[in-house]
Amino acid sequence: MKKLWGGRFTKSAEEWVDEFGASISFDQELVMEDITGSIAHVTMLAKTGILTEEEAEQIKKGLEALKEKASHDELEFSVALEDIHLNLESKLTDMIGPVGGKLHTGRSRNDQVATDMHLYLSKQVQDIIELVVELQQALLEKAEQHIETIMPGYTHLQRAQPISFAHHLMAYFWMLERDKQRLSESLKRINISPLGAGALAGTTFPIDRAYSAELMGFDGIYENSMDAVSDRDFILEFLSTSSIMMMHLSRFSEEIILWSSQEFRFIELDDSFSTGSSIMPQKKNPDMAELIRGKTGRVYGNLFGLLTVLKGLPLAYNKDMQEDKEGMFDTVKTVSGSLKIFAGMIRTMRVQTGNMEKATKQDFSNATELADYLSSKGMPFREAHEVVGKLVLHCVQKNCYLSDLTMEEFKESSSLFEDDIYEVLAPETAVARRNSAGGTGFEQIKLAIDKAKNCLK
Amino acid sequence: MKKLWGGRFTKSAEEWVDEFGASISFDQELVMEDITGSIAHVTMLAKTGILTEEEAEQIKKGLEALKEKASHDELEFSVALEDIHLNLESKLTDMIGPVGGKLHTGRSRNDQVATDMHLYLSKQVQDIIELVVELQQALLEKAEQHIETIMPGYTHLQRAQPISFAHHLMAYFWMLERDKQRLSESLKRINISPLGAGALAGTTFPIDRAYSAELMGFDGIYENSMDAVSDRDFILEFLSTSSIMMMHLSRFSEEIILWSSQEFRFIELDDSFSTGSSIMPQKKNPDMAELIRGKTGRVYGNLFGLLTVLKGLPLAYNKDMQEDKEGMFDTVKTVSGSLKIFAGMIRTMRVQTGNMEKATKQDFSNATELADYLSSKGMPFREAHEVVGKLVLHCVQKNCYLSDLTMEEFKESSSLFEDDIYEVLAPETAVARRNSAGGTGFEQIKLAIDKAKNCLK
Amino acid sequence: MKKLWGGRFTKSAEEWVDEFGASISFDQELVMEDITGSIAHVTMLAKTGILTEEEAEQIKKGLEALKEKASHDELEFSVALEDIHLNLESKLTDMIGPVGGKLHTGRSRNDQVATDMHLYLSKQVQDIIELVVELQQALLEKAEQHIETIMPGYTHLQRAQPISFAHHLMAYFWMLERDKQRLSESLKRINISPLGAGALAGTTFPIDRAYSAELMGFDGIYENSMDAVSDRDFILEFLSTSSIMMMHLSRFSEEIILWSSQEFRFIELDDSFSTGSSIMPQKKNPDMAELIRGKTGRVYGNLFGLLTVLKGLPLAYNKDMQEDKEGMFDTVKTVSGSLKIFAGMIRTMRVQTGNMEKATKQDFSNATELADYLSSKGMPFREAHEVVGKLVLHCVQKNCYLSDLTMEEFKESSSLFEDDIYEVLAPETAVARRNSAGGTGFEQIKLAIDKAKNCLK
Amino acid sequence: MKKLWGGRFTKSAEEWVDEFGASISFDQELVMEDITGSIAHVTMLAKTGILTEEEAEQIKKGLEALKEKASHDELEFSVALEDIHLNLESKLTDMIGPVGGKLHTGRSRNDQVATDMHLYLSKQVQDIIELVVELQQALLEKAEQHIETIMPGYTHLQRAQPISFAHHLMAYFWMLERDKQRLSESLKRINISPLGAGALAGTTFPIDRAYSAELMGFDGIYENSMDAVSDRDFILEFLSTSSIMMMHLSRFSEEIILWSSQEFRFIELDDSFSTGSSIMPQKKNPDMAELIRGKTGRVYGNLFGLLTVLKGLPLAYNKDMQEDKEGMFDTVKTVSGSLKIFAGMIRTMRVQTGNMEKATKQDFSNATELADYLSSKGMPFREAHEVVGKLVLHCVQKNCYLSDLTMEEFKESSSLFEDDIYEVLAPETAVARRNSAGGTGFEQIKLAIDKAKNCLK
Repeated sequence: MKKLWGGRFTKSAEEWVDEFGASISFDQELVMEDITGSIAHVTMLAKTGILTEEEAEQIKKGLEALKEKASHDELEFSVALEDIHLNLESKLTDMIGPVGGKLHTGRSRNDQVATDMHLYLSKQVQDIIELVVELQQALLEKAEQHIETIMPGYTHLQRAQPISFAHHLMAYFWMLERDKQRLSESLKRINISPLGAGALAGTTFPIDRAYSAELMGFDGIYENSMDAVSDRDFILEFLSTSSIMMMHLSRFSEEIILWSSQEFRFIELDDSFSTGSSIMPQKKNPDMAELIRGKTGRVYGNLFGLLTVLKGLPLAYNKDMQEDKEGMFDTVKTVSGSLKIFAGMIRTMRVQTGNMEKATKQDFSNATELADYLSSKGMPFREAHEVVGKLVLHCVQKNCYLSDLTMEEFKESSSLFEDDIYEVLAPETAVARRNSAGGTGFEQIKLAIDKAKNCLK
Repeated sequence: MKKLWGGRFTKSAEEWVDEFGASISFDQELVMEDITGSIAHVTMLAKTGILTEEEAEQIKKGLEALKEKASHDELEFSVALEDIHLNLESKLTDMIGPVGGKLHTGRSRNDQVATDMHLYLSKQVQDIIELVVELQQALLEKAEQHIETIMPGYTHLQRAQPISFAHHLMAYFWMLERDKQRLSESLKRINISPLGAGALAGTTFPIDRAYSAELMGFDGIYENSMDAVSDRDFILEFLSTSSIMMMHLSRFSEEIILWSSQEFRFIELDDSFSTGSSIMPQKKNPDMAELIRGKTGRVYGNLFGLLTVLKGLPLAYNKDMQEDKEGMFDTVKTVSGSLKIFAGMIRTMRVQTGNMEKATKQDFSNATELADYLSSKGMPFREAHEVVGKLVLHCVQKNCYLSDLTMEEFKESSSLFEDDIYEVLAPETAVARRNSAGGTGFEQIKLAIDKAKNCLK
Repeated sequence: MKKLWGGRFTKSAEEWVDEFGASISFDQELVMEDITGSIAHVTMLAKTGILTEEEAEQIKKGLEALKEKASHDELEFSVALEDIHLNLESKLTDMIGPVGGKLHTGRSRNDQVATDMHLYLSKQVQDIIELVVELQQALLEKAEQHIETIMPGYTHLQRAQPISFAHHLMAYFWMLERDKQRLSESLKRINISPLGAGALAGTTFPIDRAYSAELMGFDGIYENSMDAVSDRDFILEFLSTSSIMMMHLSRFSEEIILWSSQEFRFIELDDSFSTGSSIMPQKKNPDMAELIRGKTGRVYGNLFGLLTVLKGLPLAYNKDMQEDKEGMFDTVKTVSGSLKIFAGMIRTMRVQTGNMEKATKQDFSNATELADYLSSKGMPFREAHEVVGKLVLHCVQKNCYLSDLTMEEFKESSSLFEDDIYEVLAPETAVARRNSAGGTGFEQIKLAIDKAKNCLK
Repeated sequence: MKKLWGGRFTKSAEEWVDEFGASISFDQELVMEDITGSIAHVTMLAKTGILTEEEAEQIKKGLEALKEKASHDELEFSVALEDIHLNLESKLTDMIGPVGGKLHTGRSRNDQVATDMHLYLSKQVQDIIELVVELQQALLEKAEQHIETIMPGYTHLQRAQPISFAHHLMAYFWMLERDKQRLSESLKRINISPLGAGALAGTTFPIDRAYSAELMGFDGIYENSMDAVSDRDFILEFLSTSSIMMMHLSRFSEEIILWSSQEFRFIELDDSFSTGSSIMPQKKNPDMAELIRGKTGRVYGNLFGLLTVLKGLPLAYNKDMQEDKEGMFDTVKTVSGSLKIFAGMIRTMRVQTGNMEKATKQDFSNATELADYLSSKGMPFREAHEVVGKLVLHCVQKNCYLSDLTMEEFKESSSLFEDDIYEVLAPETAVARRNSAGGTGFEQIKLAIDKAKNCLK
């Protein structure tokens, strides 16, 4: 098959070499964006008089016909035509004749492909932001139902202090809020148009870049043509924001998995989000949470792949940059799916409040209460910490918990202890009293939920 | 040595285990931030009546004394005291007695260390932004001197179209502008205070988090105590922004290295930014550019290291998170140094304008001019491209360039060619005529430089 | 659709959740391996009497029929059946009835999927080794033709000392030799059978693991059933060996790209391995080399993806591990394609010997000769280095090369110089005299080529 | 300060530039290796007559004196002298006069630094292998004590089937065995000498590379001088082997952390390997396991850093390669420390056998026994799986376990059940009966321990 750029060449590449170099197998994902960009381009070419109105109309009509076909998945692409751009142009010319060749006036594949990517990512990032909001809503609903559900709070996976389950869930709300913020900010750098940058240096035609940018819904244009065709920051930024978001989901997944274990039994996942074993009939596995935790690796890998590709590349376009696409597509798919699954998993999970509460009574996570108690009565904190440490050791040796100690045992270790100590040791008290701003105290959680609702408005 | 948290323990760890777990060897970098945070904390404890004014005064005096010593590098730290927090607290108590133990009221090492990191990174990011501006200024100055310096523009490292050297330099200006934007936006998430989040759940003391945040110069507080102590997004975001910035510098370095080669000879680096060889006396190596290109790997590695650390960690604090520091310190040092070196390298380099210009005349980078010429006379672009491709091949076989062809040879390939074709083929014409927005045309460059100056105001 | 593991479940997952969790879209790549493993398994079940000969025969017949269909791409798979294992089993049971259910006796999906992966990778690694050898042969042939082709050797991309082009090419031969060595060694850890490890603990059936391993062509079995189903080292090792190999190819690609530039003109790639530009008719881009350099990022990303997945996973199988496949398939495809393309590119490239030689005469890469000359006459090397450095500076200021200096000029800087100095300065002399073991001296290169040939026998 | 390579330069770099470029702050770690290499080199220079015996003696004496000082940490290094090589050479010349300058005859810093790295890594890898063996021994001892300790085996962190604790521990033994194998194999590529490769092309002096290699204890020499100075595979291979090993330790750490939680209580770590909390007196945190899990990120980061550095570097030496050292040193330190800590942690942990056993009785991990039971009586496995799944569901609804069901209930679901079913359901039976090769059956474990002991001989 003859190449469109083949004038200078005396011999055509073998097919398997073609296939190695062609991007059509994956960049067909950009078919709609490519047509949208072309329509904007040709509209601008007519407005500026570079093409006649008539020529432009012919081309637009052809492009609209291709769009219609594409929307019904009726286009077939060829490896010999390398990429989505040449495939579409060839179909256009087949359809409307040589005037189709004028579509490429004043642009190059270098700015064209960059335009497609910006159009694509702009839409996807906005969709992903909505999926983040959906998950935040699921969290918010669950949190509202569990303000007074008490569970152990952990550090080092050791029970540390009793907390409200709502408080725990809301920690993820705020992580997602940052993810959303980062995604929104990145739109500033996604929503700008490279179209008209040409191969690297701009064009001699009197194009109107601002106009075509506006037609495509962009907020502005790249200020430098070489930057416009060489820049892949906007993809890297998406991949790194996605990596951080997947990291958040991986932490949450880890907790879902722990909480679903026979040892914790804090939640039960809905059957729709669990699977069984081909050999062990009793198994109910938190597969979706595991899979999302695992898919974190894939997104990290995509980020590192592209960072590697771009390292040390001279300006402007280099073929290496063709490698920017598959990782981006894969990340969009992975992140979207993970957010959607997560929202469903949270909404449908059953919280075993009884098991959570029981857990707060069978450990030493109220020990800090004692230290704070002594400290608030004037004992320097470090000394109080020491006193309580010894009481814990005493309990461990006696095989009991702090609330099982007698008043005498308390008095022995410090005369500051009084009868109110038993009330202080109750997990509900511990939670309620942590009423500092952003703390787990019930009043604080209600305030936080109100603030969170405001964020979603 | 006795541990401050040792009340519960019956046996002390062996020294080499201590050393493996201790962070003092690197977190002493945070000494100033730790004292600053403590002063804010104790001021708040007095204001809220948790400590008496007198107690607070004693502690503050002690902290100020430590600060003074720290500023003269007079503090010695001990591995047995694990980290900067316990080291300083121990010194404080040695100095002012048991009242020092009250400093830790209402806070935990978990929120304390997070506070230190936020304070540290806020300052560093602001400093780095200034270094970015310095490099942008160096670029701007160099660009202003070279608006009319013509060089080959490259794609695929093949000469593509002649461009202005200023245009090439300005591409990096805009990359750095995005880096700056990202750094500035990240400050929103850095400049918030985790102090008062306690170990994970807040505290029972009536603290005033907003007040201590204000004292430290933060813009707000974390909304959720568990998030406050578990969040390392702000570091990840810094590492990823830095990775993208180093990627930019690695591309620029690659070009500096190419341009300094005997084959290109486009620039000559100043001796201050070059080194020689121990065995080859004639060598003048662009070491600094190579080193910066290499240091990109280190920053990518730091990013990937922390992403790995955080993957799958349950809430809240886990010891794994101690691994957040060294990569951050190293990245601050690497990025700052690289920016500073780069500004110096750009300012002092000599541009070999003659060699650049000569290069634009000894190749086919004016071929696009011909295609545009034919296209503007009505030939469909694809056909024009074909015609020119054949002319190039003809030249290659004749061993000459396009401007060496006779009028007859032009006419033979298309009757659209006329006498003005020689003017069109001159590199200066090619550059001047690419006057589309953001293009390399001289007028455009002047506009771009003006816009760029506005960005630095 | 009813799940095979659905006995315990009361509600089936929604379809989009299924799709997120299913692996059939990619693990169908393992269809042949899965059937091969099943045939071995059922043969063993009959031999040990766990199934009757008749049952085994029925099952084998069914499996052979599936194999036949698979080889003609006639199998259709269903997402509802999750993965290749359940899809095949379902087809088998459809075909031969409930006896098909007995195939899964004494094994689990956990050891089954691990077996498939080992079978797959064993074959692929052996194929890749052959592709490495092909590339080595292409290098060897090219090297033999260019023993006496002199070119500048570079350090820091500065001309350093003249070398033979063969010597340069052979550096890559030895890199590939190490790649091959590493791949071969990894086969020890790939060619072992996990089959019979069951879900994680082995099985109560009296299976014969050694026998099924032998039937599949493995060299041995895993010693521990939990390790057998949890281990993905063999894939990591393949990904890391591939990363190093791609790094080698990225270095070579960088050189191919440099050498093809107008500035170097050391080689001309064949048209089959180059492409043109849609806008610049004169361009001939080294696309394949660029693409391979870019694809390095993809392989690095696959390695890091899987390292991330496995970090911190408890034993034994976790669903996260389903993420081990796509990166492996992609790496096999990328590495194989890159090696094949590279061999073709090397074989067909034209070496511009004239340009190479010319380059060695227009620089100071013979400066070391002078230093060695003085040093061999008794001047301490460091002093000689100093003397020559000054001579170079003198030339730079005079705008000439070392061989242009008069005898007087030489004598002025050191009386040790004599008439033979001009002979010493000739590039051929410089190359010939570097006859230390492994050096670029012509004699050494011939020896090295002989050794290299022995490696390929 | 005057540079040794400064002859050609007219202006010295500013100090802060020097500092950015200098490597002495970290490459002083190679002081011993550098001296060892120099002694071998000078010995060879004398043997081949390149230096006189007397000159060589003088130099060796000087080097021995430096070695003595270095071993007492009495050498002070200067940034102005860049690196360890120039620092040592300068000290040598100060000590013995200009003859010191002759040491550098026939070598370059490029082959010198590569030699140092090979010497360093060869020793370190051998030491690390011994630390792996120590950890394997600790595992073996613990395993021998716990052959009959029964615990739940997990997949998806759900209890799957009862196993022996020894079997679980031994899974890690075999992972480490592969790590050891990989380290040993890498020694083939570490133990070869680059010395004598010169800057890149070999040398004109009649050196004897095999002799100096032998003196340094290497097994051979690099076959190609350009490869010798450009190759960093041996470091990459070490970093990737280390990454896989740290991945293993991260999985083990995760389990240690889980087992130490109040929910599992399967083990209690010794106080020496745990730490407390500054605010929660009851906490006993598995800090060392968490830290090792976290340090996995650092090692992955080091690997990725160096892969990035080397991507796309042309031959031969480039300054970027100076970035090969810190990540290597850090990995050696991290891996060595982690192995040592792990061995101590395993040896000293207390196994709560009672809790483990109790856990196996309070779940459905014996469900597979039922399925196998039915299957061994002729029911197709898939059908058996279905029957048992329903029994489990029945138990869940009745809130009991399988062994609590009456014979009638069993019979109702399948007439194949008989009285021996209760025996079959006992965890000890389940473990004992999994006696397939490599399974958890007690007999198998004993065999495996014997094999393992043989590996350590």
